Amino acid sequence: MVTLTSPSPVVGVIGGGQLGRMLGEAAGPLGVETVVSDPTADPPAAPVTRDQLQGAFDDPEVVEALAARADVLTYEIELADPDLLEQASEKVGVPVHPSPATLRFIQDKLVQKRRLKDAGIPVPAFKGIDSPDDLRDALDDLGAPAMVKARRGGYDGRGNAPLEDPADAEALFEELGGEVMAEATISFERELSVIGVKGAEGIRTFPVTETIHQEEILRETISPARTDERTRERAQQVARDVLEVMDGRGVYGIELFEVGEEDSESTETNREGSSGSILVNEIAPRPHNSGHWTIEGALTSQFEQHLRAVLGWPLGATDRRAPTALANVLGDVSTTRPAELRGVESVLSRSGTSLHWYGKREVRPLRKMGHLTRATTDSSDDPDDLLEDVRSARDALTFES
Amino acid sequence: MVTLTSPSPVVGVIGGGQLGRMLGEAAGPLGVETVVSDPTADPPAAPVTRDQLQGAFDDPEVVEALAARADVLTYEIELADPDLLEQASEKVGVPVHPSPATLRFIQDKLVQKRRLKDAGIPVPAFKGIDSPDDLRDALDDLGAPAMVKARRGGYDGRGNAPLEDPADAEALFEELGGEVMAEATISFERELSVIGVKGAEGIRTFPVTETIHQEEILRETISPARTDERTRERAQQVARDVLEVMDGRGVYGIELFEVGEEDSESTETNREGSSGSILVNEIAPRPHNSGHWTIEGALTSQFEQHLRAVLGWPLGATDRRAPTALANVLGDVSTTRPAELRGVESVLSRSGTSLHWYGKREVRPLRKMGHLTRATTDSSDDPDDLLEDVRSARDALTFES
Repeated sequence: MVTLTSPSPVVGVIGGGQLGRMLGEAAGPLGVETVVSDPTADPPAAPVTRDQLQGAFDDPEVVEALAARADVLTYEIELADPDLLEQASEKVGVPVHPSPATLRFIQDKLVQKRRLKDAGIPVPAFKGIDSPDDLRDALDDLGAPAMVKARRGGYDGRGNAPLEDPADAEALFEELGGEVMAEATISFERELSVIGVKGAEGIRTFPVTETIHQEEILRETISPARTDERTRERAQQVARDVLEVMDGRGVYGIELFEVGEEDSESTETNREGSSGSILVNEIAPRPHNSGHWTIEGALTSQFEQHLRAVLGWPLGATDRRAPTALANVLGDVSTTRPAELRGVESVLSRSGTSLHWYGKREVRPLRKMGHLTRATTDSSDDPDDLLEDVRSARDALTFES
Repeated sequence: MVTLTSPSPVVGVIGGGQLGRMLGEAAGPLGVETVVSDPTADPPAAPVTRDQLQGAFDDPEVVEALAARADVLTYEIELADPDLLEQASEKVGVPVHPSPATLRFIQDKLVQKRRLKDAGIPVPAFKGIDSPDDLRDALDDLGAPAMVKARRGGYDGRGNAPLEDPADAEALFEELGGEVMAEATISFERELSVIGVKGAEGIRTFPVTETIHQEEILRETISPARTDERTRERAQQVARDVLEVMDGRGVYGIELFEVGEEDSESTETNREGSSGSILVNEIAPRPHNSGHWTIEGALTSQFEQHLRAVLGWPLGATDRRAPTALANVLGDVSTTRPAELRGVESVLSRSGTSLHWYGKREVRPLRKMGHLTRATTDSSDDPDDLLEDVRSARDALTFES
């Protein structure tokens, strides 16, 4: 039973970046309020949230103060501290979703991969690395180049580096801080993503998204993914299997590789090949960039879905309204400067193109500053055309003066 | 040229009710901030707006303080004071949209009707009333019953009353405060509405909405309106003519009657009958309840459109995504009490139904507390089915314990 009240239920969110902002934007219609905590004064979420607590992610007083304001705690960034969340939750008596235990194992990429592998979920071949010697061995086992990843704290490609030559093993081991893992390099057909949600009464998945990266940073997405129906179904199935491993309600971004036949041998499971064409790359225990298109493109957005899930409310329909493409607006500058995005009139004039500006004060090279969604009214729209259209809209924008 | 910045441009809004709230919800993605002023502490807009100034609509200090915070001033309620807006605008040097002059003439229903009539726009036959004698004469001229309306301050049917018997003229004249007008009662086929928007570079109209009232309060809307194509085109044309009369940028709600042949004689213009099937009932110089469906149902919502317009930005596309029905959630109580809406789980579980809760602290009889939109993914959905569906979703909700 859900009863709406005023004052509304409050979702406390660790992190006030663009994901916190879009959670705040989704909260209003639903009769939910958000309060965020963030180290930055006036972070992106501030103008659309009820209140902001300023303080470090690892400051126990801030986490506790947020818990005291909230009916449920969640986080929009993996830098949230699972121990502090657990303590604050117990002390104040509010639940945390997804569970701190889930956050904890996802934060360590090696533990995450092991957990997925143990559950029979297909992942690239990988190895835990404790020394430069281990790295050299891994290069033999996994093939060169291998992808070496810091176990903690990396994002948008930071903390990842390829290793080709055993002679570089020692330097790379040191550079990445010594707490690393190695993975077989996957030459994928394309990258896919499924946004999944775990609610009080079951799980749901959104339609498969195709993601397009450059320099390991997401540039564009398109849904439906330009692959065959069997692959889409397989991606959905893998995503459902992943959700079963997760503890705690909420939205999860599940990044996948679609691999060809020759590469499916580099996987840890499903070596029989019949359904080895999907591998799990990484899981984010929160709304994910690859799901931003759902704001316009699905009957329920991933942000509304996350709020419903953490509150224990019934989940919404995940159907796609129409084919939808998205382009990130990244900092096209070489040095940090105040954010001024020029050429916006061309986007505003473009029929069916929706603007999402994150309100960050400073633009930095390749920083995610906003995104554009190409929403349509016609389910017959061609994905290639949509993608080209939203790219050309994005390319008319610049932070350069 | 539009350049997005952080901090964002600020739209100052007189009024922090549900329209201010939905303006705030639309502002975030667009990179715009809102600040509202409202007499109530913590009004509906508060949780989704940057800041709220508390104070009476006729308090010059509050209006001036709002102007000082804003890049442009607007209003979401006709109770805004055009003189104060004009003064604050001049003193602080920020524009007001729509213009105070437009607000002023719309506030007086008699002046509004005269202005429309003078511009050749079809309106019901009407008379200005200065005495009970005038009322009795009007009853002869306009036919009984006539609709008697307070010239100022009425809404949702308040301030309107039918006059059938000349013997009641004196009492009714007194009851409505003596500053009244009378209109021919129109027995319409249906009520329609067009949301129009006037931007820096032209006007646009949204697809025609059919509105369903009971006791003069809007209950449901459906778009497309269930009428013929010729009538829809005529409604659009009349709406465009109305927008030409308005001074200042912004969204306007244009309420219309669709009348049959026999009733088109009660009109002030277009007596030839060939295109007399649309009459203008009332204009609101702001987003309107009959346009709430555009949040899910159109490529640009009326709230985003209003923000674009008042900022002088390019307008968005007004295309409908798919047939869309809406039901208001009104206070189904007999006395005022704290607002607790029960049965919400049934709405949340309903595929394609979107909830909009306004966050009002108290429910009162027939007060607008929220609305439900039935969004679809299929442009072939039948309007009658959609309407029935959203009504049944709404009817599962109650404020009664």
